[in-house]
Amino acid sequence: MSEKLSVQPYKGTRDFYPQEMRLRNWFFGVIRRELENAAFDEYNGPMLESLELYAAKSGEEIANKQTYNFMDRGERHLAIRPEMTPTVARMVAAKIGDLSFPLKWFSIPNMYRYEATQRGRLREFWQLNVDIFGCNTYEADLEVITSAIRILRAYGADETMFTVRINNRRFFNDVIAAITDKNAEESRLVSKVIDRKNKVTRESYEKDLRALGLSDEQIGKIDALYSMNVAQATALCPDSVGSCELRSLFAALEKMGLDKFCVFDFGIIRGLDYYTGTVFEVFDNAPENNRAMFGGGRYDNLVDLFVKNAKISGVGYGMGDVTLENFLVTHKLVPASFGSGVKVLVTRFEDVPYEAYTSLAERLRDAGIVSSVYLGQKKFGKQLEYAVKGEYSHAVIMGGDEYARGVVRLKNLLTREEKEISLDALIEELQ
Amino acid sequence: MSEKLSVQPYKGTRDFYPQEMRLRNWFFGVIRRELENAAFDEYNGPMLESLELYAAKSGEEIANKQTYNFMDRGERHLAIRPEMTPTVARMVAAKIGDLSFPLKWFSIPNMYRYEATQRGRLREFWQLNVDIFGCNTYEADLEVITSAIRILRAYGADETMFTVRINNRRFFNDVIAAITDKNAEESRLVSKVIDRKNKVTRESYEKDLRALGLSDEQIGKIDALYSMNVAQATALCPDSVGSCELRSLFAALEKMGLDKFCVFDFGIIRGLDYYTGTVFEVFDNAPENNRAMFGGGRYDNLVDLFVKNAKISGVGYGMGDVTLENFLVTHKLVPASFGSGVKVLVTRFEDVPYEAYTSLAERLRDAGIVSSVYLGQKKFGKQLEYAVKGEYSHAVIMGGDEYARGVVRLKNLLTREEKEISLDALIEELQ
Repeated sequence: MSEKLSVQPYKGTRDFYPQEMRLRNWFFGVIRRELENAAFDEYNGPMLESLELYAAKSGEEIANKQTYNFMDRGERHLAIRPEMTPTVARMVAAKIGDLSFPLKWFSIPNMYRYEATQRGRLREFWQLNVDIFGCNTYEADLEVITSAIRILRAYGADETMFTVRINNRRFFNDVIAAITDKNAEESRLVSKVIDRKNKVTRESYEKDLRALGLSDEQIGKIDALYSMNVAQATALCPDSVGSCELRSLFAALEKMGLDKFCVFDFGIIRGLDYYTGTVFEVFDNAPENNRAMFGGGRYDNLVDLFVKNAKISGVGYGMGDVTLENFLVTHKLVPASFGSGVKVLVTRFEDVPYEAYTSLAERLRDAGIVSSVYLGQKKFGKQLEYAVKGEYSHAVIMGGDEYARGVVRLKNLLTREEKEISLDALIEELQ
Repeated sequence: MSEKLSVQPYKGTRDFYPQEMRLRNWFFGVIRRELENAAFDEYNGPMLESLELYAAKSGEEIANKQTYNFMDRGERHLAIRPEMTPTVARMVAAKIGDLSFPLKWFSIPNMYRYEATQRGRLREFWQLNVDIFGCNTYEADLEVITSAIRILRAYGADETMFTVRINNRRFFNDVIAAITDKNAEESRLVSKVIDRKNKVTRESYEKDLRALGLSDEQIGKIDALYSMNVAQATALCPDSVGSCELRSLFAALEKMGLDKFCVFDFGIIRGLDYYTGTVFEVFDNAPENNRAMFGGGRYDNLVDLFVKNAKISGVGYGMGDVTLENFLVTHKLVPASFGSGVKVLVTRFEDVPYEAYTSLAERLRDAGIVSSVYLGQKKFGKQLEYAVKGEYSHAVIMGGDEYARGVVRLKNLLTREEKEISLDALIEELQ
């Protein structure tokens, strides 16, 4: 077999070399720290699930088309998870009697979607999922939105860099019904047209609304909603539960000083069949990253897929690693270096027993100092070159003479300073 | 649709609820800390790879049978990774000119194997992979074995709990040739029989060796190898490169005080076609966990699958999360609690503005104190119950009276002590 295998990763997937991995470990680390700090608990589930889980949530056609799915040898139709929500709903349902609600949970799983790749969208990605189960009032909506803002602020982001765009599906339904004066069924048809607004021409949009009997005045009233603030918008149907939720949420955000990050945006709908209350998206304000980074909202019926009348309301969001990384890089929020600083290469000479080097490295490691013996038998100059390329901060030099006297030379690779030091003093010097 | 979906995860996979996730984060955290401390760099790659990657390493039949594999819509035959080694070899090959060798790399990916489930073996698992590329002498073998021992010692394990069993494939070939006095081709047939020794009866084993022309004396000499130490074994073919590597390795282990964890074991072979030098397995000494936890060795030809004459030698090991967890639990090495200790529930009363609670929780979080507001509107007793179940250490109580006076009551949920404290003193008290 002289034909060589390709070194390219599969389309839409990525290799993470140590440099990229350090970046990821840093930004996932910030997320974990902030969420654990706010008493969210981490969970995880399997990468493979029954395909019917996704079909039950999104419909069979979408589930088939957007997932990697296949039969196992026992004729079970499986899918690689394209999202985490069905898994977490399954897990909540499985232990519904044992869990102490409200649950505050998060996960950062890898997942796959079968779709065309573009900036900010790959086939394999990691997605932060944050959810609160078992609290059906605005306080939980506030808590998940607060957590998204906390994460971005922890990276050093401010209100010029991102915007939380908030709407409410109950408000949406009620205000459309109020403007059009239609019953629930007819109003739903109008909602479907509005949901597709950005995907069709203005002409086609107006034509579809007129076909449902809307007047120019009614169409104008709907248009006006897109530039209203929350007080103006909710005044159109003041008694709606959705209006009340929006007002409570925005009042709390204001009193917490978080309103500068948030706006009411009637354009946020997020899929008609799924969300039932607050919906929101966090947008990167940079024009080159023209996508929502976080998206989520309240969903009421998901645990019911598994347990009859579960009545466990959930609210949460997902955030992909690809859009987050674009955000951090574009806004220059990535630190220049992730290292702890001290990293020691113990260089090696032929006239000293090798174990003297490995024992020294082990002693440094025991003291919590990152260190390695140079592996191999290259000349000293090559060893130093390796140290510099590998971002080591110090080299320890112990030839036969130093070994006999129980000392080493410690070279600082940044300043190029070098000094002789006893083995015992070395650890203290480096700590 | 009244038929409810199953709450069970797919066979051979696991749900990780927060309690199990804390355990995993702890034991993976120990691994990361120890390996980073020894200057190993973390990497990762895609969950899906081209099936031919695994076929090239293990043969088409095994690759097909043991992996979850399927065609994508572009007729690419993909597999969910059953192991990490082909991926890391591909990554090394892709950047062979840019990387600074020797590389010290590790990864903790999730992966799938299509096999019957049993204790210590599931279909979805996580596997630590540690590899050194670009150093073809025993020093790299020593470094990876040292890292395995360091990880287990970091959990508190000692030499009574695990054993590193070491052999060498060059030595194996040479000693078989020496005992049987056969050429390479004939000797290879003998090796194949020896490799299957534990899978057949003693009778069948001896019959197969006699069929290849071995005398009872020769069979006895092979038997004797299984109870020899490294000095006795290598004396049988003292000039073998493998003997030399074994002696160097064991001498260094002894001088580093690590020989108490290690034994020479002629029974460690690990697949005939793959390994080329040192091979080793780390066994759990507990009889109920009768499996190797770590397994690995030196392989020379893997990067060559991608790059002609790459000549990058590798040595490394894999360790699965399932066997590790069994080990830690069996030897009682899991800490009673993983928490930082302080975790504060801010309880809630109707006569205080809600934002007073959320702002207080945000201040505590800003100070690095894990805290949450109780979400919902249950009675105080229910809120305290929730705090105790959720392993909160403290409850902050601020009713209308306290709010008016700028104080809170701080209740220690372990000691049940309660005291009044000013808002400003609260953070200091909890830190």
